[in-house]
Amino acid sequence: MTTVHRIYNFAAGPAVLPVPVLEEIQRDLIALPGVGMSILEISHRSTTFESILERAEADIRALANIPSNYKVLFLQGGASLQFSMVPMNLLPAGQTADYIDSGSWAEKAYKEAKKVGNSRLAATTKSNNYSRVPAQGELKLTPGAAYVHMTSNNTIEGTEFKQLPDVGDAPLVSDTSSDMFSRPIDVSRHALIYAGAQKNMGPAGVTVVIIRDDLLPRSLEKKSSLPTMLNYAVHAENKSLYNTPPAFAVYALGLVMKWLIAQGGLTAIHGVNERKAAKLYAEIDRTGFYRGTAERDSRSLMNVTFRLSSEDLEKLFVKEATSAGLDGLKGHRSVGGMRASIYNAFPEDGVDALVDFMKEFERTRG
Amino acid sequence: MTTVHRIYNFAAGPAVLPVPVLEEIQRDLIALPGVGMSILEISHRSTTFESILERAEADIRALANIPSNYKVLFLQGGASLQFSMVPMNLLPAGQTADYIDSGSWAEKAYKEAKKVGNSRLAATTKSNNYSRVPAQGELKLTPGAAYVHMTSNNTIEGTEFKQLPDVGDAPLVSDTSSDMFSRPIDVSRHALIYAGAQKNMGPAGVTVVIIRDDLLPRSLEKKSSLPTMLNYAVHAENKSLYNTPPAFAVYALGLVMKWLIAQGGLTAIHGVNERKAAKLYAEIDRTGFYRGTAERDSRSLMNVTFRLSSEDLEKLFVKEATSAGLDGLKGHRSVGGMRASIYNAFPEDGVDALVDFMKEFERTRG
Repeated sequence: MTTVHRIYNFAAGPAVLPVPVLEEIQRDLIALPGVGMSILEISHRSTTFESILERAEADIRALANIPSNYKVLFLQGGASLQFSMVPMNLLPAGQTADYIDSGSWAEKAYKEAKKVGNSRLAATTKSNNYSRVPAQGELKLTPGAAYVHMTSNNTIEGTEFKQLPDVGDAPLVSDTSSDMFSRPIDVSRHALIYAGAQKNMGPAGVTVVIIRDDLLPRSLEKKSSLPTMLNYAVHAENKSLYNTPPAFAVYALGLVMKWLIAQGGLTAIHGVNERKAAKLYAEIDRTGFYRGTAERDSRSLMNVTFRLSSEDLEKLFVKEATSAGLDGLKGHRSVGGMRASIYNAFPEDGVDALVDFMKEFERTRG
Repeated sequence: MTTVHRIYNFAAGPAVLPVPVLEEIQRDLIALPGVGMSILEISHRSTTFESILERAEADIRALANIPSNYKVLFLQGGASLQFSMVPMNLLPAGQTADYIDSGSWAEKAYKEAKKVGNSRLAATTKSNNYSRVPAQGELKLTPGAAYVHMTSNNTIEGTEFKQLPDVGDAPLVSDTSSDMFSRPIDVSRHALIYAGAQKNMGPAGVTVVIIRDDLLPRSLEKKSSLPTMLNYAVHAENKSLYNTPPAFAVYALGLVMKWLIAQGGLTAIHGVNERKAAKLYAEIDRTGFYRGTAERDSRSLMNVTFRLSSEDLEKLFVKEATSAGLDGLKGHRSVGGMRASIYNAFPEDGVDALVDFMKEFERTRG
């Protein structure tokens, strides 16, 4: 293995992966040990791939302490396809789904649901520029709702729910794409959890869905009209092997899960993530030169969003940071400013490097 | 690069990839040259990834001589999701789609279409165990059909269309998952072509869709009800970057396209594929010990299916072949027997090795 130059990648996703995972993928790329074929070539019906899939599922179950009455599925299409699959499977005609609108992606999920059936906003912080998540007292829930949809971390705005909202008896569905497995999660309080892998869990190309068994009959009831590939019950019954899965992405995700277990699991990584985020927020709050865009009690540990006094200065910041090997700090095009995404695999010394850069930038440009 | 043991992989897909492609992926896995990040980590909005995507598209266009009034899309979900996307986008209410049923996958496509709208069989060879594709004279086409769907190569049964059926003015939609870019293709005679990548084009996880511009208004008309992620027009408008694409799979597919161009393109690879298949069919036909299951004028160059006089003998054949390093020869579970899948990247010496093994097996067990 030759040494290669790597930079600090603050991108919001696809995002940085653990180097030991990349090294293992590289080592075995031509042929998996004892198999004689690449992970890119093996049949998804082979015992080799079946055990890769089973191991990934077992590690996910262990990490999040997933109860036995939940299925773990590996699907395609990202969270964006889940925006449609959730209502297509879980929203029967004549019932209503509630959506908590806490950010740009949450709003997209709501818009897709409206195409499928009766959906309404239970709360929105859009008029606050999504600078915080809705408070418990703001939720207006529909009695007997088919489900309540939330977005646990808002990647673009840099906010997160610190506690799960109380939605009573309604099934809680959560898009956890940008914080899945960055902190402990109480799966038992959810009915369905989904996440595109490309932030904390692996490369782009696979979506993890954790679904409680008692929701599957809703999919079965729609079997005659629901496309087979969009039916949760079909994927559950076929253990994610109804058709050819994105085998490489599942394999890489499995290696990330193994790495995460080696780091000590979700509580341990949460501690690291809290420490990394605290360093950045402390620097943002130090003098007022930088301005955090999220309200303090909604600040995300994953996506740290901040601004400067002018767009010109922000452009300069991003440009000079990029030159200094701090890549991907430009905020999402819809909100501007800066965003440092510091997922599980983002190294703490990269956070330190950014803090140092911020101090120096303030010293010379402040 | 250390030498690793590789075996002959006759699997039907995911399937063997060119070794130079695997070697390039391995070499650059930790960080793309000059980028400092792995292909598994880079943002899909980066100029690096944009040029990877554009290069892959340009090479596909060059290889198949695709007219400028066609879009090339990189999607997820495999051919199985296309079974639904095709009618969801292209079949307006009140119109009819015709399906040519030439094999197990063609039948699946038809079943999914029936969930969406009026669909009917234009021809079927199911009563012949799909041992041949329907002849031109057997097609009963609906005047003014929304489209006609065909499957150019039937992976499970080992048959292929030698010529495109004449469907008059109806838009021709073809599932080319198992022969895409194994032979020249007249794109201009199609309205839409789709293929899961994992046979001739790359690893599992990306689906190529080639769609003629005049079909896109049908998707736009359904915009208010069609899920955004399932809308061809949305993906066309966003150049396959509406959401995070399966970046690694697109990258790997691009490398396979580059390799294919270096082999001389589709006419050249077709020559190689004809020679490889001819060797196997000659051995099958030599004495009668082996029995080809496809009728001669429908024989596939990609999937060579054959049987022995008893299932016990077939089991022994597969077992001994596997021991000899000839892997993946067991036929699909729905039809039994043996299947040798010999896609573009399958090496000719592997075909020679199988022919030698077949001769020896007949000598000792015949």
